[in-house]
Formats: sequence, C-alpha cells, structure tokens
Amino acid sequence: MENYTQFLFFLFMLLSVGFVAIVFVLRWVLFFKEGLAWDGGLAEFNWHPLLIVTGFIFIQGIAIVVFRLPWTWKCSKLMMKFIHAGLNTLAFIIAVISMVAVFDFHNKQSIPNMYSLHSWVGLAAVILYTLQLFLGLCIYLLPITSAYLRAVFMPIHVYSGLFIFATVIASALMGITEKLIFGLLLFRKKPEYKHSPPEATFVNVLGVLIMLFGALTLWIATRPSWKRPTDQAPGSRQSNGGGSNGAKQELSLAGCGATDVHNPESSMEARKRNWKLDEAGQRSTM
Amino acid sequence: MENYTQFLFFLFMLLSVGFVAIVFVLRWVLFFKEGLAWDGGLAEFNWHPLLIVTGFIFIQGIAIVVFRLPWTWKCSKLMMKFIHAGLNTLAFIIAVISMVAVFDFHNKQSIPNMYSLHSWVGLAAVILYTLQLFLGLCIYLLPITSAYLRAVFMPIHVYSGLFIFATVIASALMGITEKLIFGLLLFRKKPEYKHSPPEATFVNVLGVLIMLFGALTLWIATRPSWKRPTDQAPGSRQSNGGGSNGAKQELSLAGCGATDVHNPESSMEARKRNWKLDEAGQRSTM
Repeated sequence: MENYTQFLFFLFMLLSVGFVAIVFVLRWVLFFKEGLAWDGGLAEFNWHPLLIVTGFIFIQGIAIVVFRLPWTWKCSKLMMKFIHAGLNTLAFIIAVISMVAVFDFHNKQSIPNMYSLHSWVGLAAVILYTLQLFLGLCIYLLPITSAYLRAVFMPIHVYSGLFIFATVIASALMGITEKLIFGLLLFRKKPEYKHSPPEATFVNVLGVLIMLFGALTLWIATRPSWKRPTDQAPGSRQSNGGGSNGAKQELSLAGCGATDVHNPESSMEARKRNWKLDEAGQRSTM
Repeated sequence: MENYTQFLFFLFMLLSVGFVAIVFVLRWVLFFKEGLAWDGGLAEFNWHPLLIVTGFIFIQGIAIVVFRLPWTWKCSKLMMKFIHAGLNTLAFIIAVISMVAVFDFHNKQSIPNMYSLHSWVGLAAVILYTLQLFLGLCIYLLPITSAYLRAVFMPIHVYSGLFIFATVIASALMGITEKLIFGLLLFRKKPEYKHSPPEATFVNVLGVLIMLFGALTLWIATRPSWKRPTDQAPGSRQSNGGGSNGAKQELSLAGCGATDVHNPESSMEARKRNWKLDEAGQRSTM
C-alpha cells in the first residue's frame, strides 16, 4: 500500500474521533439528560441520539472504509463483501430501533411526528439506506447478477453510499440543534442555549466531532491509492466481476489466504492491473 | 464528451433546482418573514438566508461544476481557472456580507454571537473556504508555483472544496432548523413549528431543495467521464502543470480557441492521455 504510515495515521484518527464521539453522546444522555429507559418518556427518546451516533454514524463509517484496511486484502473479496454488508445491516437495524424510540416517545407524549426538516432528511436517509442495502445485496451478493450490471451500478453504489452517509451526518447535526433548543428553551431549563451553558458547549463539541468523523471517513474512502487491489484468480483477469463464474471464483477464494499484500511489488502490479480495468469501466471503486 | 445527453439532463436539473431554491428563499423572507432591510432588526437578519442560498450555495455549486461544461473546453485552462476563482471569490464576498448581517442583528438586539452549533459549523466553513481560496490562488494562479506542488496539492484542493461545500449545506440545514424553531416558537407566533404551519412545510421543502442541489453538484463533479480533457500544448505532455513554463504555455492559450471539443475521437484521445497522467499522479482532478 502506498503511504501506509499516512493511512495508519488517518485510520487511528478516525477510530479515536469515533470513540470520543460515542463517549460524548453517552455522557450527554447519562449526565446532562435523563439517562436511558424504555418508558415512553425523555429517557426513551435518549436512545435516539445514542444509537444514531453509535450505529448509523460510527458503524456505517467503518463499513465504508473496511475495504481499505490492507490487512484484509489477503481475505477474498466475497468475504469482505459479506463483512461490508453485515456492518451495514447492523447499522440499519440500530437506525430502525433509534427511530422506533422517537416515534414511541412522540406518540406517548402526543407530539406530532415528521414535522421538522430533521425528521424529513433523517427519514429520507433511512429510506435511501434501505434501498441501497437491498440493491447492494441483490447486485453484489446474489451470484446470478451479471458482471456488466455490477460494473454499471458500481459508481452509483459508491456515490449513493457516501452521499447517504453525509446526509446522515447533516441530519444528526440538525437533530443536535433541535434537541439543544428544545431541551434548554422549551422546558425552560436555565440558562438558555444562547447563554452557552456547559451542556450546550459540550454537545456543540459532539457535533464538531461527528463532522470530523465524516471528513476522515470520506477522505480515506476517496483516496485512489488506498483502494483494495482487485482479486486475481490464476489465469483470469476479472474474478472481481460477477455472474456465476465470478461467484464460483469468489467462493473458491472465500476466507483469508496467505497472499503477501504488503509486498510492494505485487501490490504495485495489482494496482497497474486495476488502472487497466478502470479504463474499461469494469472496476469496483470500493 | 461521454454521456453528453445525461450530462445535459443533470446540468438542467442542477440549474432548475438551484433557481427554485432561490425563489423559495426569496418568498420565505419577503412573504412569510419581515422582508429585507438594513436596520438592525429581523429584516436585516433575513439577508443571511437569502445571501447564503444565492451566493454560498448556488454560486459555489456553479463554481465547482464550471470545469465540466463541455462548451468551455475550447477555452484555455487558465481562463477557466480565473472563472472558477472569480465565482468562488464572489461567493466568498456574499458569504461575508451575510455574516455581517447576522452579527449586526445580534449586536443591535443584544443576542449573543457564536453560541449555536450552526454558528460554529458555519464559521468553520467560512474560515476553511477563505483558506481554500487563498491557497488555491497562490498555488494555481501564481506562475511561480512548481508543477510538482500543484500536482501534490490537487487531491487536497478537490477534496476540501467538495467537503466545504457539503459543510455549507449541512450548516444551512441547521440554520433553517434554528430559524423555524425560533421564528415559530420563541416569538410565540401561532401555530408552532410542530403543528406544521404553511411556513414550516414551505421552508422544509427549501431544505430538501438545497440537499438536492448539493447531491446534483457532487454527482456532476465526481463523474470521471465528465472531466475536462487536459490542455495539450504542441510538443508538450503537461501544459496543465505549473511553473513558469506551464504558466507561459497557459498564457499563450488564454482565451477560447477553435478546438473541436465535441469531436468524439479527439476527446477520447485526450481522455486516454489523462489516464496516463493519472497513473503518474500528475493530473488535475478538476
């Protein structure tokens, strides 16, 4: 891998910022807010920010960069696809639970649902994420899909994956804004948001951490030199493709082999092959 | 250009959504809110959303995709750089005026500045945009900068440009959320935001339009097949590079020539050369 030390630095920063963001959201709901419960009250609502930051942001971010980890390049592309799909499915389940918490809280407190821009953008993100997951599973994990369809759909899959991730972050920032205003103004807890009480400053920092996590994820995901080299079956140029042949090759490669992915020469050769596939528009960009 | 009709469709959608968003923000401040004035009151604040949507979002979006317009490919790269820098400078000036309107309103109304997450993210975006503009001007328009530095800095320039644009959009959505809550709750105007008055639904749609404008801009900007073919001076492979030689070549190419950019064969040849430059890490990604 080119710039391996730089990659490790960015990965370390990504994980650190992500962990600190999770600690921040935990402290927010446990220390500044009403804690966690499933009782139809504010403590039930608090599952929403906690699960969104943990699942829909942190786990989704890891799912996006998982193809970039060089020590996974000895594993087959099929296994990595399963890990990518598994992490995204986990993030999806957590996101759905976090939405149930809000709808249940709203219904029990007689607060209308889906009136704010945050709720519109957030629901749109969840619907698009569901569609992305469904289409991704059908196109890249079902062995019947043609290599042509996989190649044609890949730029859309990559773009929409990154766009949905950015939309989730934008929605989270709107949610933080809403919650701080309502929590510090609506319920007349003093001092108000505009007087910068400790909670407001603390949660603003959480917002900045989420932005930073998003920036690091998108940076790692969009560096061409950190892309996973394409799997090469002996005598074949396109084991990364689809169709039944591609699927059989992938299955035969399932698991982690002993390929020396840190060998600069073999990595460079694989990268040169990738550029050729790129030119033909056949290469996965993830 | 490959997929020319598809490009025209996306460009038409981008411009249409952008224009509709500007009409929406105008209707919001003129019909639902207090109109426009420079009197230290709410009408002065209203310049903020109007100028942000018009300048910091619409004009910045156009500045991002301007290299992609195929009918500008007959113009020299230097001229296009000036147009790109000029549009970004205009967006920057408009963003600064829009911030002055808010600070002046806050100061006259004794409202604290810089307490909300929206203000933190928004100010960070303006500071990063200033830095991006300054570094961009120094590196890509000063003739003394080396080709090596231009090539090394280009991925950072492109990434940070798109990231700042996304940050501005996220900040705008937070701003809309804040303004709707304050406008419909704080001043006790009935009905409240949560009862979905016409203003709330109308401005939520504005938020969705802004998201859509961002999605279209990022889609157009990140399609490799819609990139501008690299300028080629006779006998030179890298007129797109920098240094005094590169600058002289660019100056000699300033203005719009009679190059037939719609000739599929010449466009394809230029694209093949681009891939070669890409491999060497020397090519502009804009």
